[in-house]
Amino acid sequence: MLMKDIIEKKRNGEALSKEEIEFFVNGYTDGSIPDYQMAALLMAVYFQQLNKTETFYLTEAMKNSGDVADLSGIEGKKVDKHSTGGVGDKTTLIVAPLCAAAGVRVAKMSGRGLGFTGGTVDKMESIPGFCTSLETKRFIDTVNSCGMSVIGQSAHIAAADKLIYALRDVTATVDNIGLITSSVMSKKLASGSDAIVLDVKCGSGAFMKTPEDAETLAEWMVEIGKRAGKSMAAFITDMEQPLGLGVGNSIEIIEAIETLKGKGPEDITELSVKLAGYMIFAGEKAGSYEEGIEIARKNLYDGSGLKKFREFVEAQDGNPDVTEDFSLFPGSKIVLEMKSDISGYVKELPAETVGKASQLTGAGRARKEDAVDLGAGIVLNKKIGDYVNKGELLATVYSQSEEKAQKAGEMLKTAYAFSDEKPEKRQLIYRIVR
Amino acid sequence: MLMKDIIEKKRNGEALSKEEIEFFVNGYTDGSIPDYQMAALLMAVYFQQLNKTETFYLTEAMKNSGDVADLSGIEGKKVDKHSTGGVGDKTTLIVAPLCAAAGVRVAKMSGRGLGFTGGTVDKMESIPGFCTSLETKRFIDTVNSCGMSVIGQSAHIAAADKLIYALRDVTATVDNIGLITSSVMSKKLASGSDAIVLDVKCGSGAFMKTPEDAETLAEWMVEIGKRAGKSMAAFITDMEQPLGLGVGNSIEIIEAIETLKGKGPEDITELSVKLAGYMIFAGEKAGSYEEGIEIARKNLYDGSGLKKFREFVEAQDGNPDVTEDFSLFPGSKIVLEMKSDISGYVKELPAETVGKASQLTGAGRARKEDAVDLGAGIVLNKKIGDYVNKGELLATVYSQSEEKAQKAGEMLKTAYAFSDEKPEKRQLIYRIVR
Repeated sequence: MLMKDIIEKKRNGEALSKEEIEFFVNGYTDGSIPDYQMAALLMAVYFQQLNKTETFYLTEAMKNSGDVADLSGIEGKKVDKHSTGGVGDKTTLIVAPLCAAAGVRVAKMSGRGLGFTGGTVDKMESIPGFCTSLETKRFIDTVNSCGMSVIGQSAHIAAADKLIYALRDVTATVDNIGLITSSVMSKKLASGSDAIVLDVKCGSGAFMKTPEDAETLAEWMVEIGKRAGKSMAAFITDMEQPLGLGVGNSIEIIEAIETLKGKGPEDITELSVKLAGYMIFAGEKAGSYEEGIEIARKNLYDGSGLKKFREFVEAQDGNPDVTEDFSLFPGSKIVLEMKSDISGYVKELPAETVGKASQLTGAGRARKEDAVDLGAGIVLNKKIGDYVNKGELLATVYSQSEEKAQKAGEMLKTAYAFSDEKPEKRQLIYRIVR
Repeated sequence: MLMKDIIEKKRNGEALSKEEIEFFVNGYTDGSIPDYQMAALLMAVYFQQLNKTETFYLTEAMKNSGDVADLSGIEGKKVDKHSTGGVGDKTTLIVAPLCAAAGVRVAKMSGRGLGFTGGTVDKMESIPGFCTSLETKRFIDTVNSCGMSVIGQSAHIAAADKLIYALRDVTATVDNIGLITSSVMSKKLASGSDAIVLDVKCGSGAFMKTPEDAETLAEWMVEIGKRAGKSMAAFITDMEQPLGLGVGNSIEIIEAIETLKGKGPEDITELSVKLAGYMIFAGEKAGSYEEGIEIARKNLYDGSGLKKFREFVEAQDGNPDVTEDFSLFPGSKIVLEMKSDISGYVKELPAETVGKASQLTGAGRARKEDAVDLGAGIVLNKKIGDYVNKGELLATVYSQSEEKAQKAGEMLKTAYAFSDEKPEKRQLIYRIVR
């Protein structure tokens, strides 16, 4: 088999076989196929597309190119949740305890943040003592004993995907439905859960800008997951503005805790209860999605979710008292209040700009090797639809550095746009694809 | 300027600017742009095309990436001839003396053979003593004194083209009109002549399979050459079967000499006289193409072309007596006569198969570093339209090795196809684009 022939076949619009797809995935991973041939193939895929069968083969080949988690030591159905990436999205840390409290197993392997989106692993590490690098045995024991665990993703998960993604990033071949689907799903399938609930973000702060594009991606991912024998669903949700009010690391953990106490922002609360509801249904602890929502809501308002969160933090060497004493979290030297220069309704608050402002505070990283300021970030006081008076607080910026706080504040101000008329309320969940 | 943005722009179907094209040509040549980004761009170009303006900029940038010949020391108009590559094409060695005898200057830089097509430099080296690596001053002096010179192309001509062509070859991005045009024309423009007559081959043995495709390529090359200020014309000629009867190195020189004596095969004689006729017109030594043909024909039949050939051979240290004594050429130990198994008209004789058979005799090279057997090759006795009786001679194979001759003979036999009806005579020159 020759890589040149595979490139030519795809260039000519023909579908590649399972063997051809395995050939280039394995060859690229072991270095026998050079970057330039892979780059040419990716550009040919950009123009000629992959069909769903090719995408399935690609997903499986990339999954098998690295570590595949063996969760057979965990009793019961394992349910995973994955967001395609947003700003202020701390739902995992609310949803997992709500599910665990309902008896559903959540064995979660998460990534770190990069660019303007945060990562669950960074956020968890803002809890003093919390360990995100458990050995496999301890990870499985923790899920068995407390119903959930969150650890950092293996560096060797879907090895081919890492290499291919890095190449796509510098060759303008990121934007392709088959490649996006296989990239996400290869990692999800390697994570070993029985059911996967996806949260596909759409809007200015997401990879998919419109509900229609997000729906297409959701349909592809759901279909590929089903072909791999998984129980699948995908929520299509709004990422036109950040989710909740807090953006950062400890800032988001605090908001998750507040939400588990029933005092969270409306959007975060609603989305978390519904995602958890679906996961409880997918984990066969409810007969329907609606019943799952009821159970999730009960677990949120009766404190059993918060109790589970504390158990989980303690099981991973974290200090559970953070739920009662937020001063235990890393703080910030600089606290900068951003006041409004005009009066009016907030019309726009693009998630991406807020995410980038948060990155400027030190809360995010531009490159993989950068350190993260766990106390830094942004707390929004006004979101789309809120009325603000001139001089009123728009948001608060937290940072270790005056200069960073100033820069972040300036960027944040450019994010807010106002109008005299009250804008329509944004829909939070557009659709569930299953 | 970022290469990624250039890739994305072309991917999206936008035209690239002069600056962007220079950026990637220079960056790829100096190594600052990696193979994989160039490969992605080439595949994007394959799908989105280059327009003629982009192709002109690309041609100029590639020309300027390497050595550019300065022929200002040569008096009078310099006319170049270039074939897109065929089998048995020894016209340069007939055309150049016919032109030189008419007072037109031909300062020719040629390549070596690779794959199933031969190279003028290899052919010339079959003349004992002939030197193809003259220094610039001697090259120019030779053209001034004898009207013509043929030397090997600088290794540094159109440096970017060499790199890009090697990459196209392994990434399935060869077949693109803008890329083909710029690859040929960058080298031609770097060769420094005032007028260029192209011989664009079409048929099974050529890159362009149909007269229509060849015509498109011819039109593009002529237009790019004109934009660069050159006087341009392109002949579109048949390469469905080999040109002439001889394929090899000394074998082709001998056929060229025979042609200069007025005893050459009809096709070679006709094409050479017409190409030379056009070059004499382009070199302003005739008032029209028709008058140029008359001059070329006269120079062929009155022996002044042959006389010029002998002068040129002598000027480059070769033994001019080869024109009278063919035993001075390298010979072959093995002479294998291929007889026909059936009677009938020759219907097909694909140039590519004959070229590959010739390569098997040792006359060609598979890789750049291979040595060439200067005496080896094939002499055809029958071509398309000829009637052959069972047992009659089809062709003779020459080689230093019995095994190579046998292999070549077997392949050559597969080239011949017969029919009971006399096939129509093939047209040799389809059109002249100017």
